[in-house]
Amino acid sequence: LGKGALTRGRILDEAVRIASREGVEGLSIGTLAAALDLSKSGLFAHFGSKEALQIAVLEHTSTRFRESVRPRLENLAGLAKLRTLFESWLDWLSSPDLPGGCPILGAAFEMDGKEGPVRDALVRLQATSAESVHRVIQEAVDRGELSPLTDVAQAGFEFRGLTLAYHHASRVMGDPTARRRALKAFEDRIVSWRQGP
Amino acid sequence: LGKGALTRGRILDEAVRIASREGVEGLSIGTLAAALDLSKSGLFAHFGSKEALQIAVLEHTSTRFRESVRPRLENLAGLAKLRTLFESWLDWLSSPDLPGGCPILGAAFEMDGKEGPVRDALVRLQATSAESVHRVIQEAVDRGELSPLTDVAQAGFEFRGLTLAYHHASRVMGDPTARRRALKAFEDRIVSWRQGP
Repeated sequence: LGKGALTRGRILDEAVRIASREGVEGLSIGTLAAALDLSKSGLFAHFGSKEALQIAVLEHTSTRFRESVRPRLENLAGLAKLRTLFESWLDWLSSPDLPGGCPILGAAFEMDGKEGPVRDALVRLQATSAESVHRVIQEAVDRGELSPLTDVAQAGFEFRGLTLAYHHASRVMGDPTARRRALKAFEDRIVSWRQGP
Repeated sequence: LGKGALTRGRILDEAVRIASREGVEGLSIGTLAAALDLSKSGLFAHFGSKEALQIAVLEHTSTRFRESVRPRLENLAGLAKLRTLFESWLDWLSSPDLPGGCPILGAAFEMDGKEGPVRDALVRLQATSAESVHRVIQEAVDRGELSPLTDVAQAGFEFRGLTLAYHHASRVMGDPTARRRALKAFEDRIVSWRQGP
């Protein structure tokens, strides 16, 4: 690839692949320059610092996730949208483009004992994704598809837990039943959110 | 500390602290030697390789987890044991001795795209902990405290998911409601495992 052909998006796509395998903390301007056969000084001029590159990678990952989900949610609302959102999340966590899993999820478990701007960006992105889930759950409540007594934040906590359990079973343990179990657990939750407490 | 006073257990305790903060992949004989003010060659003679050290740290973490849980489970059986096991798991994930969370959990998310003996050890330890959870669930079924139709592996998947959701909410997001939400979700699961499918 000529350097001129490498847009910021394509540089970040490669950075996401590296971060998926090595973790965001394993990503540096040096490893990215080597993978793209670019000069470190050029990438440094582009991103400014390792931390700025790491934040850009987390944000690019988030954008790609949202772009992969958005077309699937079009014309859906409430409970149908919630189900598709959950399935899209499982698909994302199994994406062949992410050889070591989602870099945001990896970073969450990598950086839980740390402080600084990269962790702040990570927490912000994770809070935004939680709010998106909460909005869809609330929409299902408002449409009368889930009980008006549904604790939306509690339901969101359990939604996240099932995506983490899926990631752990499929990616870590190589469990071929992971997807079936995650979908079963999710449908059980929907039954209980319909009934209410 | 004199070198003579440093037993293998105390060396590994320090290694667990480093792995908690930096991840198992951030642990090397060099970083451990520096933290303990020991010679690299002495530690190398002791552990043989970085990978052997990483595996020893994962196994030591697992031993410490089991030692922290065992006295709490004594004289308990079935459902009471399952509840206490879940609470012990939450306490472990919040332990002040683990500034960056459980190294085994960190390694699970760090190494999900990798192969090799460290990952094999990790998967083996995670499978063993899953089997322990399954045994206690099965005991509650056998005692008639949970439905005979309970899918034990499915229940174990959800048990793991709630511990991961707790870790994510408390350690990553700093959510003060994490423990309350995890316990609420777990009690809801017990209600449904009692009723059966």
